[in-house]
Amino acid sequence: MSEKHTPLSSLGEFGLIDHLSKSFEIKQDSTLKGIGDDAAVIDHQDKCTVVSTDLLIEGVHFDLSFMPLKHLGYKAVVVNLSDVYAMNATPTQLTVSLAISNRFSVEALDELYAGIKHACDTYGVDLVGGDTTSSLKGLNISVTAIGQAKKEELIYRDGAKAGDFICVSGDLGAAYMGLQILNREKQVYLENPEMQPELDKHKLLVGRQLKPEARKDVIAYFKEHNIRPTAMIDVSDGLSSDLMHICKQSDVGCHVYEANVPVHNETYNQALEFNMDPITAALSGGEDYELLFTVSPSDESKINNQEIDIAIIGKIVEKDKGLMLQTRANHLHELVAQGWNSFQK
Amino acid sequence: MSEKHTPLSSLGEFGLIDHLSKSFEIKQDSTLKGIGDDAAVIDHQDKCTVVSTDLLIEGVHFDLSFMPLKHLGYKAVVVNLSDVYAMNATPTQLTVSLAISNRFSVEALDELYAGIKHACDTYGVDLVGGDTTSSLKGLNISVTAIGQAKKEELIYRDGAKAGDFICVSGDLGAAYMGLQILNREKQVYLENPEMQPELDKHKLLVGRQLKPEARKDVIAYFKEHNIRPTAMIDVSDGLSSDLMHICKQSDVGCHVYEANVPVHNETYNQALEFNMDPITAALSGGEDYELLFTVSPSDESKINNQEIDIAIIGKIVEKDKGLMLQTRANHLHELVAQGWNSFQK
Repeated sequence: MSEKHTPLSSLGEFGLIDHLSKSFEIKQDSTLKGIGDDAAVIDHQDKCTVVSTDLLIEGVHFDLSFMPLKHLGYKAVVVNLSDVYAMNATPTQLTVSLAISNRFSVEALDELYAGIKHACDTYGVDLVGGDTTSSLKGLNISVTAIGQAKKEELIYRDGAKAGDFICVSGDLGAAYMGLQILNREKQVYLENPEMQPELDKHKLLVGRQLKPEARKDVIAYFKEHNIRPTAMIDVSDGLSSDLMHICKQSDVGCHVYEANVPVHNETYNQALEFNMDPITAALSGGEDYELLFTVSPSDESKINNQEIDIAIIGKIVEKDKGLMLQTRANHLHELVAQGWNSFQK
Repeated sequence: MSEKHTPLSSLGEFGLIDHLSKSFEIKQDSTLKGIGDDAAVIDHQDKCTVVSTDLLIEGVHFDLSFMPLKHLGYKAVVVNLSDVYAMNATPTQLTVSLAISNRFSVEALDELYAGIKHACDTYGVDLVGGDTTSSLKGLNISVTAIGQAKKEELIYRDGAKAGDFICVSGDLGAAYMGLQILNREKQVYLENPEMQPELDKHKLLVGRQLKPEARKDVIAYFKEHNIRPTAMIDVSDGLSSDLMHICKQSDVGCHVYEANVPVHNETYNQALEFNMDPITAALSGGEDYELLFTVSPSDESKINNQEIDIAIIGKIVEKDKGLMLQTRANHLHELVAQGWNSFQK
């Protein structure tokens, strides 16, 4: 190893990716999109192939003391499919690689694969390969999702224009509040193993954390109503952080109205119970796997109706106006990204 | 977790893959080949996309005390490209995901990525994506290689016919002997840190372990000479184990001549120094990344010449004749697979 020792945390996840990938040039004509979007895009004449991959580490991304293996298998697939949908593409195939310590039994892996199979069946995707090996410690899962779309259907992060509406599907912050509940119940259990966890009354929030869904239906709605977002990303790191990716790559600013950010009642009440501002959970929570996208004003009427749970939360503005949040009290704050940086944990 | 606890080692790696994947059906018309070959194959009309993936775990697949990070990056890419070549396809894109503990510095990752880049440049492949996250312990690398080929060019494991010649490129067992040398020098160093490792005189064997190459040139030779192997696999687990995959999937037997199995002089001498039968290193060593393939008798003359380092090591026979090794002393033994099973370590 070299003599200089710059800690990884000094760059952060996105800085590190930029740093490591900057010296790589594209050599293949078929590479339409490399590093820097929800997925890579490969040109195969008639259609394009979309590739997204994630590596999940026990103790960093999931806690098996409250994450059932079946849910873990389901979620590991869904988070990758969500990246493919965020390209406006259809996921078709999947590879799953596992590294497992010998504390796991065949029956435990059967549970994990039951969840993977359930996700494959729900989303119509084929498991086509992978690798299975041992680990020295814990469970590691690497999932690669492959999808397809016509070239003209693909939606990148860099197409937002000043005047576009910023939209998000579903509601935000629920998965984060679910995680807070699970962590609290784990503490209660560790202090007194006779206490039964109080999860039944938090089914919605806990469910959003343990078994999220990818918004296949939103992509279908776009197709059905001939809507073409100008930019799109899925909300995995938190609304603020993911909206910043769109703004940075589209070279624009944004103006978000706090009052319009969709927050479920249960998320709202639970945040207050934890002495937390609900908008913070919604902006910075992450793991929502909702779709965040921008549409040109001409598409507004197709979005702004009761047919599907899409909210217009703000507008794209010129870059020099910055990235701003207008609070309910009409104050303007700069939008802060507290996206998830696993190197700072 | 369920109450029954069947240890993973009871199934072995291939048994476990069969067990876990058996309930998955193929739903997409575009899935030409799922689990069970060197790579999955996806039909994209004019061309097919080939996908291969590997998960490498520190302490299981590599030992950083003697594996320089630059070589590790190179090797992690090459072993996946080798799987793509083993389908008679051309690798085009790559994703690399890393999980890293915070004992690694940015400079250490720069070394790793220098190796990845060197492999990308050598083989003309684009790095198009990945994931970078923290691990609780050690370095994990997940690589997915994507390639392409016309449908009629693809070569699977299941096409070998009785009468076909069994061929292998290069020579076998060198990477395994290189690993034995590295392990010995590590022990010497651990017992006496003042001793300098004696690696210079073992450059060839150590190089085969630390920096293997994928046989891009063999695939080019096939194309140039219009050779179409009937079945093909790359030698990663060891000749015996990999030949058994071909025989099992092609529903045939084999007859291998020990005298014809190519072993480098240095491998031979080093095996004797370690009191090991050289043929054992060649048959069971693994990590050679040579191509093992079968050709119909009509292609024999195109293979059996001095232009390229390909050896004919035996013949495919009817299934009921079994999988046999004919020794130099003309004894017939059953071929034994001592392929690498990481769960039994």
